[in-house]
Amino acid sequence: MKNDKFAIGIDMGGTNTDIGLVSPTGVCVDRQRISTASYEDIRHFITDLVSTIQTLLERNDICEIAGIGIGAPNANFYTGVIHDAPNLKFKGEIHLKALIEKEMPIRVVLTNDANAAAYGEMVYGGAKNMKDFIMITLGTGVGSGIVVNGHIVYGHDGLAGELGHAIVIPNGRKCSCGRSGCLEEYASARGIKKTCIDLMRERKFDSRLYDLPTHKIGCKAIGDAEEEGDPLATEVLRQTGDVLGLALSNAVAVSSPEAIFLMGGPTKSGDLLTPLRESFEKYLLQSYKGKIKLLRSSLKENEVAILGAAALAVMENGV
Amino acid sequence: MKNDKFAIGIDMGGTNTDIGLVSPTGVCVDRQRISTASYEDIRHFITDLVSTIQTLLERNDICEIAGIGIGAPNANFYTGVIHDAPNLKFKGEIHLKALIEKEMPIRVVLTNDANAAAYGEMVYGGAKNMKDFIMITLGTGVGSGIVVNGHIVYGHDGLAGELGHAIVIPNGRKCSCGRSGCLEEYASARGIKKTCIDLMRERKFDSRLYDLPTHKIGCKAIGDAEEEGDPLATEVLRQTGDVLGLALSNAVAVSSPEAIFLMGGPTKSGDLLTPLRESFEKYLLQSYKGKIKLLRSSLKENEVAILGAAALAVMENGV
Repeated sequence: MKNDKFAIGIDMGGTNTDIGLVSPTGVCVDRQRISTASYEDIRHFITDLVSTIQTLLERNDICEIAGIGIGAPNANFYTGVIHDAPNLKFKGEIHLKALIEKEMPIRVVLTNDANAAAYGEMVYGGAKNMKDFIMITLGTGVGSGIVVNGHIVYGHDGLAGELGHAIVIPNGRKCSCGRSGCLEEYASARGIKKTCIDLMRERKFDSRLYDLPTHKIGCKAIGDAEEEGDPLATEVLRQTGDVLGLALSNAVAVSSPEAIFLMGGPTKSGDLLTPLRESFEKYLLQSYKGKIKLLRSSLKENEVAILGAAALAVMENGV
Repeated sequence: MKNDKFAIGIDMGGTNTDIGLVSPTGVCVDRQRISTASYEDIRHFITDLVSTIQTLLERNDICEIAGIGIGAPNANFYTGVIHDAPNLKFKGEIHLKALIEKEMPIRVVLTNDANAAAYGEMVYGGAKNMKDFIMITLGTGVGSGIVVNGHIVYGHDGLAGELGHAIVIPNGRKCSCGRSGCLEEYASARGIKKTCIDLMRERKFDSRLYDLPTHKIGCKAIGDAEEEGDPLATEVLRQTGDVLGLALSNAVAVSSPEAIFLMGGPTKSGDLLTPLRESFEKYLLQSYKGKIKLLRSSLKENEVAILGAAALAVMENGV
């Protein structure tokens, strides 16, 4: 798609909200941060958010933008509302889109973080020429943005793309959502740590991870150990890749994408992609085998949220 | 969508090919059959197929139609080619669309049977006002047609919508596709029979199904027994509903549909829908619970293939 406008991308989190000005080629040319957690009243937050946007536009001499895109937890694209986000102080339904549009005559679009990442990849990243792909974000949870025929799948109510809560191991690990065996319990940072702790109890490995206190065992430590050939860390990533590969092969049977992109902590250290590719190919239906690329996101981790939100504004400008 | 044209719908199977003339309101006003199995040479088949279409149009005084839609096994929407369909005599790649269009100046569109059923439901059936739904066809196999934002999901290569081969029970029953635990091995007619035979061996039920020879145990017999309260048949449908409910809840996490439609043999006798609904709701992520309709297809079973193919011609007329 052709894009010749700047856009504002906002990454709204429980602690901080990052506001970026993004060029048509996907460079975040200027950015500023406000502390979400320091506001008790959403109206004061909106006032400061709007004045920050205005500051960014003025000091960069930008008069016209494609729009304002916001990636936020529990955000609904259709309604522009944030619903009961557990990590935000503002409770209940926050009509973020309406509140900002009341202050500024610019179109505001909201989506969740994983969908924003998919928009970023599509507009500025490795999926520029793709019409069918899946973005998987591995972190505290497992998020997914599913793109079909050039559009994010929102579904009937805006809640599509919850691959983290596909049940991949029936009667498996208890999930925070109340059910059992969700992908998130195996492939999130928490899930990977759990696999490591379980393996330490089940078997004896010649591993340096035994020397760490439990709270220090995480994706980074496991990944670093795997890079040095640690057998426990290697087995953790193998098992993680196996479950994730199974879940992704099932997602392929639904949407038959050209590629699946991965991003987030667990992809940063250690080699998760090799066991993942092996398992993915093993579980794929014959007609898909060898055809679907598994790729790391091409966007910088510390920019992806802002770029994704800006891409959302660009893509959904005319909707 | 508005539709004011007749269309030709063709249901091409290994044994017979049914050709129907369908009115704008979805009535199959005339139909004729030719025997697919009696042709050794695809060219002779095409000659007779085209002359049958012409006969139907002439004897009903129809000059202009929306197009010709064909539902066929292993048919690729993008290429108009049938790839190695196991139940057809014509081997290798059959360029069905090109072969017919050479003989008739009318647009020909191909898709597989489950996608055709989804088109039928969308144009003439219960999904007329829906933009996001899933069609599940239960029969010899398990087929699926996934509709997102008013369009069938074809994916990158035209092969999307293979829910029958989503792996729902890891390391479960060996599937004909070479992998293990596919939905098809549990929810197809063959899968349901296998569940029944397995249960007969594992436990002792007070069931009249023990009186039948193995080759007589099938969906119809099990469904009929269930309707009379047979405990074995009830348990078979409960287990079938459980696995199918799990698979469907995972599909919801991808595309968040308004409804899921079911059709085919296993839905015709016995009450599969009640245990299916229970299991589906149990496995659904909280945010989807109670929101997604599970419905029987509203189209007549003996007309759905022709109606679906005609609907395909209507929907994809301008593509």
